Order: sequence, then structure tokens, then C-alpha cells
Amino acid sequence: MTFERLRGFRDLFPEDAEPKFYVLRKAQEVAASFGFRHIDMPSLESLDLYRLKSGEELVSQTFSFVDKGGREVTMIPEATPSVVRMLTSRKDLPRPVKWFSLPKIWRYEEPQSGRVREHIQFNADIFGPDSMEADAEIMGLAASILDSVGLEGKYNLRINDRKLMESILSALGSSDPLWLFPVIDKFRKITREEFRNQLAAAGLPSESVTRLAGLMERGLAGKDLLKSIREVVDVDTSLKGIIGRVAGTLELLETYTRSRAYIDFSVVRGLSYYTGIVFEAFDSKGEYRSIFGGGRYNNLSGLMSDQRIPAVGFGMGDVVIELLMKREGLWSVPGRPIGFYVCVASAEVGKEALNISGKLRRAGFNVSTDLSRKGLSSQLKNASSSGAEFAVIVGRNEVDTGKLTVRNLRSGSQEMKTVDELVSGGHQQKD
Amino acid sequence: MTFERLRGFRDLFPEDAEPKFYVLRKAQEVAASFGFRHIDMPSLESLDLYRLKSGEELVSQTFSFVDKGGREVTMIPEATPSVVRMLTSRKDLPRPVKWFSLPKIWRYEEPQSGRVREHIQFNADIFGPDSMEADAEIMGLAASILDSVGLEGKYNLRINDRKLMESILSALGSSDPLWLFPVIDKFRKITREEFRNQLAAAGLPSESVTRLAGLMERGLAGKDLLKSIREVVDVDTSLKGIIGRVAGTLELLETYTRSRAYIDFSVVRGLSYYTGIVFEAFDSKGEYRSIFGGGRYNNLSGLMSDQRIPAVGFGMGDVVIELLMKREGLWSVPGRPIGFYVCVASAEVGKEALNISGKLRRAGFNVSTDLSRKGLSSQLKNASSSGAEFAVIVGRNEVDTGKLTVRNLRSGSQEMKTVDELVSGGHQQKD
Repeated sequence: MTFERLRGFRDLFPEDAEPKFYVLRKAQEVAASFGFRHIDMPSLESLDLYRLKSGEELVSQTFSFVDKGGREVTMIPEATPSVVRMLTSRKDLPRPVKWFSLPKIWRYEEPQSGRVREHIQFNADIFGPDSMEADAEIMGLAASILDSVGLEGKYNLRINDRKLMESILSALGSSDPLWLFPVIDKFRKITREEFRNQLAAAGLPSESVTRLAGLMERGLAGKDLLKSIREVVDVDTSLKGIIGRVAGTLELLETYTRSRAYIDFSVVRGLSYYTGIVFEAFDSKGEYRSIFGGGRYNNLSGLMSDQRIPAVGFGMGDVVIELLMKREGLWSVPGRPIGFYVCVASAEVGKEALNISGKLRRAGFNVSTDLSRKGLSSQLKNASSSGAEFAVIVGRNEVDTGKLTVRNLRSGSQEMKTVDELVSGGHQQKD
Repeated sequence: MTFERLRGFRDLFPEDAEPKFYVLRKAQEVAASFGFRHIDMPSLESLDLYRLKSGEELVSQTFSFVDKGGREVTMIPEATPSVVRMLTSRKDLPRPVKWFSLPKIWRYEEPQSGRVREHIQFNADIFGPDSMEADAEIMGLAASILDSVGLEGKYNLRINDRKLMESILSALGSSDPLWLFPVIDKFRKITREEFRNQLAAAGLPSESVTRLAGLMERGLAGKDLLKSIREVVDVDTSLKGIIGRVAGTLELLETYTRSRAYIDFSVVRGLSYYTGIVFEAFDSKGEYRSIFGGGRYNNLSGLMSDQRIPAVGFGMGDVVIELLMKREGLWSVPGRPIGFYVCVASAEVGKEALNISGKLRRAGFNVSTDLSRKGLSSQLKNASSSGAEFAVIVGRNEVDTGKLTVRNLRSGSQEMKTVDELVSGGHQQKD
């Protein structure tokens, strides 16, 4: 018999679960404030749905199996194909469709720092408009979520455009730029020497490799972007449209966040279905994997249906944000109501004690009632270890006089208060 | 290629997802107000963990498979074994441990009304105390959750005690009372004749069957419970302890809810590991399956570890509560912030429009900004179909004067307001 949890899976105890679900709740609130609507998809889908989009490499990393009905199914390794399936199944929805979801997703990969086999991913997408406004909004939403939990300024947003990058690689002499993307994607994970060697092996002239690496090392502003590119490579003026859009997106993004955002030509994203802007956020110190990532994918709906619906979206996993918030000392739940622990000095007043607990709860406090039927000193020990701020002692005398003994469990000080006094203040919400 | 969702699984679009997650959020808030802490467990566990507790019948209904590492695993068909695994892995936790969780769970069963292959289950458990106070609190929590979403009085809470039921069946002449529980469990699902036949076939004397059915048809109060039982069968006075506890639990439960609660001897619960009180809630009209169910299970931790930790808990699925709330006209999200739709009359003021959206958002409103770059009349159509209450029109003139055109999308009336006027009131939160 195996009673260990599976490798790569996590038990979330309250000390981690509560900050985690607080962050996810903030993400939902921020998304709702942007007019995004909440959806949810099945955790299990036909494997074909994921084969189509994600390719065999991702399929080899799925928890997939044949179910009792003979269907080839998979625990979803990402949300996007399911979201697009849902979208294309509904032709009645007014555009834009702006949806968010918080599924668990699963990948059979080797667990390591920042990577587990099951995680919760916050997803959001805008379907309909193909505009810089939509591109800026989806990144603005992702940034606003981080900012809402105190991370403003503690991360950078790196932006690129797949079409722009293709043109640059073409201008540098590549006959098949898409072939180079997997190497580009590794820029910050391998040494410069490995990078040069791999690009050369993929057919890029060595002089071009040097110029490309020079361009990729810099974080570029939207302003004078064409000029910056042209200092390195002589791209076509037909790129003005794309460059203007990327620069315009960066400018609009300033209205959403004060965190740093810049063009970074090393960002191309692994998945093959992106068609325009792509982006990733990293902690400013560069310690962790990306906090979130996404981009524009205008062709996926057309592959899955007879509708072509422009789309831009992102996914934010729960693992890296936890590492970052812990490092920054932000891993806690602010605004939690203060806690009372109600001690029952004798069983005969048990019902009265419960009524007092109920009144305090309805007033917005978190209230535990002692359930042990043990002596008062044992109950006060329970009160201390419960994490509550105050113990309230209810005995015969307290019930008769209406005055409860209220002990501050931090300072040890005691005072007598009526329930109404407790309810109407004196005990403020803590921060 | 299959792009249909799998049989028995659900796509949750906003119209259902939002009320559903509202109910689950209320459940979390109520649980927190009772001093319960949030946890989360893996969706995938060793099949052995579930074999142990749930038996082969449940295992035959799991989505289980052999993973790429050769492990026999299952998508969890319920939460309790995982929760107990987590509990017994931590010996440092002060008792009582009061935990809740909201996992998805999966069962490979034939889909039908109120039953799907994947659902979200709200779970809560109290580990440590074996007391009527704990029994009442767990039921009180479940009831308070229903009451918090407007269902007070619209359901009944039916309570039994497994040990009491065993004693009654023994007194009625059964040599192996546990053998009868599966039949007892079917009392309200089969005809009386089938019930009698099955009990007789299981060896209960026919005169006893008549007496038992008479007892089971009645909803009994805690008061005079022993007397009520003795009118039908001559049970031992040693049952006084159990009967006193059940009656006492019912009395304490009154402090939590005004919904009807009573003793119902037909409630025994299917799962074999309950050791004391068992309970189920049904809608008052008796249309649906149980809304929630649970009970005391003091032996499971001892089966899984060297610790014996008394436990009482319940699970509440998301399916029946949705059916019931829809029937009662309660399936909506109260207290949602009012919505603004910001129309951008010309692209040159796009950035100013986004700044206005941001200000309104920070003031607590839900704000969509038009992303279409189309003409104003097209944008106003988008505004109407977005569900927002107000459209705000931002053009050159509005930016220069600081006065925005604000159109009430319900009434069509328009007025000019500054952002500060919008922020500081006049637009109250809707109910």
C-alpha cells in the first residue's frame, strides 16, 4: 500500500494554501474589474484536441490514458485548446469575448525548482479584436494582477513580435527563420558560445550571429525602435506597421503599470501557434522562470473550426509567483478578519456559547468555538495555538451577567465586555 | 480528430460559472468564519490510497490508469483519503485540525440528472475532538453555507447514528446488522414492497421489517427519542449514551440554522467507514439527490497510519446545489460592482481613455475599454451587449473639457460628468 503523495505533486497546507488562494482571488477580482468573465473547462479532454495544437512533444509530457470507455484522453496540459473549443462551440456570444479561468494543469516532466507535475494556472484571453489595444490590455491585466499583490516594480515585462523577429532573421540571412526560434528561445538559458554554435549549426552566417546576439542583449524602448533595429540589420521599411504596433502597445501599457516593459528579441515562446506579439514577465533579479507568458494566436480557432477568431492571451502559473512573493516577504493574506476563540467554561452553557459565536461570526469575525469539553486551562491553550487574537470565556456567570471575559492572547490582558460591545467595535479588523 | 467535450463533463460558461464560483466563495468565507483553514490536495493519487478506504466498487468507478512511470494512479474520486493522508503526514499540528478544500473529483459513472463525471466538491473536516459539539459544528457549518446563499428553510437535515442503527437492527433480530445497511440506504429510492422483500431476503424476520419500516418513515425529534424508539423495538438502555448524544447534537444544531433537522433512520450513507453520526441534507420538496452528506469516521486515520484521530466531516457537490438554486431563483451573483464601458471616440485619445478606465477600476468599478477601433455607434453597440450599466464616451472634446458623456445603457439617458464625479458616487453598487 502506498500512502505517499505522488512525485511532483504538492500537498498544500494552510500556511501555503491561504496565500496562494488569496493571490488567485485577487487575480479574479482584477480580471473582473477589466470586464473579463469567469469560465471553467473539463480537466479531462480528448487527447486529439491537444495533439492538434501542442504537437507530439507536449503530448509525450501529458498524463494521458485510455478511459474505461476506450477513449484516448488526457488530463489537460494547458488551457488554451479547451478555451478555444468552448469558444467555437458558441456562435451566439457578442465580441469581444473576454474570459478567464483557473484550471489545474498537468505535465509529466521532471520536477525541479519552479516546476511541478500539477499546478494551478490563471488564464485570460481576448477573442475578437486584433488591435494594439487588445494586446496592451491582456498584458495590462497580467501586470495589474501582479501589482495588486504588491509586486509592482519587482518584475520586467519582455515583449517581442514573432513576425518582426521572422523579418529580422530573414534580413540576417536565414532562409527558414522559424527553424531558429527554438535556439532563440534558449538565449538566456545557455552560454553565449553555445548560442552562437547552435545558431551557426542551424545555418545562420557567423557574422549575422554576432549582430543578432548584440541586438538580443539589449532591452529596447518602443521609441525609435526601427532605428535601433537598423543599427544592426537593414530590415525592410514594410516592417513599419508591425514596429509601430509594438511601439504603440508598449506606450499604451504604461497606463496599466509602472513596472518596466521593453522589447526583448530573445522572447519567442516555445509553442508554435503564436502569430504576433509574444511576451513574458520575469522577476527583476532574474532568479526564476517566467512569471507569466502569452501572446497573440490568430489561427488556432481556424484549425479547430470553420471560424477564424483573432485571439490574444496569457497564462500565469502558481509556482513562480509563490517563490517570488516569498522572497519579497509578501506571502501572507492581508485583511483577514480578527479571530475569536470561544471557551466554554461549563457544558451547561454550551448552547449560549454557540449563540455568542454565531453573533460574532455574523458581525464579520472569524470565530472558533472550543469543541474539546476539557477544562478551561486546556481550552485556553487551544485558544493560543489556534492563532486567534482573542479568547472569549463563556461560563454560567458570564451568561447571567451578560459580561464576557475577553483575553488578548498576544498581550495576556483581560477585560469584561458584552457581546454588543465586541460586535460594535473596540476590535478592529487587523491589516 | 475529436473536438467535442467528453461525455459526462461540463463546459462552464460565465452564466453558470459565475454563480457557481460565487457559491463556492461564500462556502470558503463561511468556513473561514468558523475557524476552518484552506488546504488543497493533488488531483492524482496512488490508487492504493483509494482501494484501502473506498473498496473495489468505488475503484471500478474511477478514472485510474498506469502513468508513464509505471505507477497505478487515480484521479481522486473523493477527497477524504487524501485529506487524512495529509493529516497523518503532519504530527506537529495543534488539535483540533479544522480544514476545508474545494477539489474537483471524478467518477466514471453513467451521467444522469444531478450526476456528472467531474464535479467540484466542497469538503470540510474536524480532526481531534470526538464530541457532540464537533458533530453539531460540522453540520452547522454545512447548513450555514446553504443559509448564506439564501437557502435557509429550503432544505431538511436528516441525521442518524450508525451505532444506534446497528443496535436497533440487532434488537429487531438481525445477526449481522451491517449487512442490512445497503438495503436501508435504498429506503427512499425503491418501493416499500421491494424494501420489505430485500430486507427479508437479507434475513430480517418479516414482523421486524414492518416495525422497522414504521420507524423509518417518521422524522423524529431528539426529545424523547429513546421513548419513540421503544414504541417500536425494545432496545437496550445502554443506548442512552448514544441517544443522548444524538439528541444533544440536534439541540446544539438549532444555534446554527433555522432549517429543519430531524432523526431519520433511513440515512446510513453508502461508504463503509462511518463510525457514528451520519447525515444528509435534501431539498424540502424532495426533488433531488442529497445536497451534502457526511458523518463521523474515527477509524480511517488508524488504518492509514499509527495514529488514531477522531474525525467528522462532510462533502457538498456543486451539482445539486445548482439545480436547487436555479429552481429557487437564486442562481445569480449579488453585489457585483456596476460596470462601465469606455468608448474611445478617436484613437488619438486612446491613452487618456485607458487612464480613465484605470481610475474607474481603482474606484471599485468593473470597466471594459473598447478594443475594436471601430466607429462610435459600433462601440455603443458593443457597450450594450457587454452587459455594462453605463457607457462612458471619451473623445478629444471630453479630454479637453474634462467632462465625459455618460450614457445609462438601460434607460438611454445621458449626462456629462467628470471622472471624479463618477468615482465619488452617483453610481452606487447595485445589489
